[in-house]
Amino acid sequence: MAEQIAVDASKAFGVLKALTNEQRSDALKRISSALQQARDDVLAANKKDMDYAKEHSLDYSLVKRLDLSRGDTFDAMVQGVLDVANLEDPVGKVTLAKKIDEGLNLYRVTAPLGVLLIIFESRPEVIANISALAIKSGNCAILKGGKESYHSFKAIADIINKTLAETEVPQSAIQLIQTRGEVFDLLAQDRYIDLVIPRGSNQLVRYIKDNTKIPVLGHADGICSIFVDKEADVEKACRVVVDSKTNYPAACNAVEQLLLSPEVADDSDKLNRILMSLVEANVKLHVTPEIKLRIGSSIDASFVLDAAPDAFDIEYLTPDISVTIVADVAAAVNHINEHSSKHTDCIITENKATADTFLKGVDSAGVYWNCSTRFADGFRYGFGTEVGISTNKIHARGPVGLEGLMSYQYQLKGNGHIASEYVGAGGSKVFVHEDL
Amino acid sequence: MAEQIAVDASKAFGVLKALTNEQRSDALKRISSALQQARDDVLAANKKDMDYAKEHSLDYSLVKRLDLSRGDTFDAMVQGVLDVANLEDPVGKVTLAKKIDEGLNLYRVTAPLGVLLIIFESRPEVIANISALAIKSGNCAILKGGKESYHSFKAIADIINKTLAETEVPQSAIQLIQTRGEVFDLLAQDRYIDLVIPRGSNQLVRYIKDNTKIPVLGHADGICSIFVDKEADVEKACRVVVDSKTNYPAACNAVEQLLLSPEVADDSDKLNRILMSLVEANVKLHVTPEIKLRIGSSIDASFVLDAAPDAFDIEYLTPDISVTIVADVAAAVNHINEHSSKHTDCIITENKATADTFLKGVDSAGVYWNCSTRFADGFRYGFGTEVGISTNKIHARGPVGLEGLMSYQYQLKGNGHIASEYVGAGGSKVFVHEDL
Repeated sequence: MAEQIAVDASKAFGVLKALTNEQRSDALKRISSALQQARDDVLAANKKDMDYAKEHSLDYSLVKRLDLSRGDTFDAMVQGVLDVANLEDPVGKVTLAKKIDEGLNLYRVTAPLGVLLIIFESRPEVIANISALAIKSGNCAILKGGKESYHSFKAIADIINKTLAETEVPQSAIQLIQTRGEVFDLLAQDRYIDLVIPRGSNQLVRYIKDNTKIPVLGHADGICSIFVDKEADVEKACRVVVDSKTNYPAACNAVEQLLLSPEVADDSDKLNRILMSLVEANVKLHVTPEIKLRIGSSIDASFVLDAAPDAFDIEYLTPDISVTIVADVAAAVNHINEHSSKHTDCIITENKATADTFLKGVDSAGVYWNCSTRFADGFRYGFGTEVGISTNKIHARGPVGLEGLMSYQYQLKGNGHIASEYVGAGGSKVFVHEDL
Repeated sequence: MAEQIAVDASKAFGVLKALTNEQRSDALKRISSALQQARDDVLAANKKDMDYAKEHSLDYSLVKRLDLSRGDTFDAMVQGVLDVANLEDPVGKVTLAKKIDEGLNLYRVTAPLGVLLIIFESRPEVIANISALAIKSGNCAILKGGKESYHSFKAIADIINKTLAETEVPQSAIQLIQTRGEVFDLLAQDRYIDLVIPRGSNQLVRYIKDNTKIPVLGHADGICSIFVDKEADVEKACRVVVDSKTNYPAACNAVEQLLLSPEVADDSDKLNRILMSLVEANVKLHVTPEIKLRIGSSIDASFVLDAAPDAFDIEYLTPDISVTIVADVAAAVNHINEHSSKHTDCIITENKATADTFLKGVDSAGVYWNCSTRFADGFRYGFGTEVGISTNKIHARGPVGLEGLMSYQYQLKGNGHIASEYVGAGGSKVFVHEDL
């Protein structure tokens, strides 16, 4: 069953890959209006999921994310599909053109990756969004939603499927599956599936990474750090640390570790201002002994905890932060490269040279200077729709937009050219290698 | 032991990553002259490997590849290190610059990947070459050579290590290991190693892919095809097919399958010209029944074999080729997407529209029109040194130059900017998102 799904997707890819931008965009426009017309049906299905969630008292934030009738969620979904249709075509862009010899030209051309397996929890509108991105970029997608959004998912999926039947895009370009068992089997289809994109909890991402040989675009942990250098503006440090920690503590780009230079930690005014700003924002401080020694009486002791042995290797996702001292910027870089999850790390300093040392030394997707780690996000970066945030170093890194769904191919166009006439392969002809 | 090697490399990366181009290039210049000065010692060590190989009658091509004294191999190695030193700096190139808001600027900057594990068989000069590429690109490398090149490898490794001690590049940036057991353990160090690059037999690559969670840059099989369209120039078809098959049959970019359109197969003159050109070049034809039916008596029967059941899923690496009929260009695309290893595939046709259909539909790293598959090579593409040829669709694809060793990072530079002041995170400020 799983293999058949993957094979069908792979076959559909051969067709979808060769369609024009007009053909792909036309399918999206039709899906957008079909969704608009089916608004009542989709919301009725969504209400079933909401009722189930409320009856079974699933947690509040999950219920809220399920709700397609909240605010402009539905309209935004419909408009989102149309917006993607109107994006510039990401397929077939020439990114390199080289004359190899007279009449023999090499082109590097952007091309879709192939078959994507997208697994997500909650947020049923993501189905429409990610289907649109897949079709626009010429990729086939196998989508698996969470069981809490079963009815919403099915309603949207049916509309997409029915609409695709009227277009040039093969129906099996977008396949929507619902049972849990199939995911495990799909993760074994590395021959047909090119990339897995999990959208959900750390547990989900970790499970997927541990159970597949297919490349996974995403991140399990977001262990972000802020280093407050001796030449930091303390006012900025307070603003940035508090925002990074409290704006949305459950996000992967929230800060989890505060590293202080000795000059800051030894200055009781500076230390207290920074720590007080966190305490006033209701953040619990998990401090090392050297920090504890230096904390003044002005800080409410109930907010000060001893740092656990793993305090610098965990993601709290709650209003908690680990605090320690590192000797200088070099020590901060070492600490971060050893402990961070290579997501986003920040330095607070007024010294540009120190900032440069930090930005060059830290091996994370985002390296920040005097600004909140919460900016690590595709929308804030201006990438339009976000496919995910990657802590991989291979392929796409950091917040990933449509680009992350693209690969490239080399096209070589000749006129009967053969290698054996050239140097290195038995002949004497020399390559030209001129940019076109 | 393996973990310590990986941890040391990872620590060295923090230092190497922050060095300037001058510091990295200076180390390479010193290595180049040290190798030049140690020429006699290295060749003496190499002679030991050669003597061992001859005594134990390792196969001829392997012995030949071992020999550092053949032609200008040694000088080319020394010069190669210097050439890499003089390349443009691949680190720190700004590939995107965007104003997010007043005083908040985003830059995407090229950065080294991290720690590379490079495993290769034979060809001892590759050590110097790949060490140079790693250092130039700011990557640390763990290198593992084959046992047949033990002495050569050790001699070159000692020189590189001794020389690095006099430079800013940490000694453990380049670590050279020799025992087989360590490879298996190193493949488990996915926390510290970012990319594995195998240079050797299909068996080696397959073993590595099956035994690691670290991304592998390379290819196991090279199953390349040529489709001769009904509008092919038969003269070009003969030239290109023979070159693709016979120029170097053991190469990954040699053709293994010949797909003929019915119009070509049914034209006995065309069919015989194409097949005769292969037979005259001593190539054995593994044909399907429909081809066999059509073969004329002019072809020596001893060159005609029945295609085995897996004839379209194997890599011969010998002067053998599978031959069949496919209905048209669409069928050729389907056949190739199902059977090829996504390395390099070619169409022979005089019809541009047909060629376009093929180039757009085939999902391989190289899609060729009227030219030999043997051109799929970093040197022939003008990429300078080749790191490998990748059949992955994630990260680098096709022949991979220095670019394939690079990732990127997002640098965000602000002045105390916090997310909660902006729309979407609780505030009202709007992002500017202007290209810089």
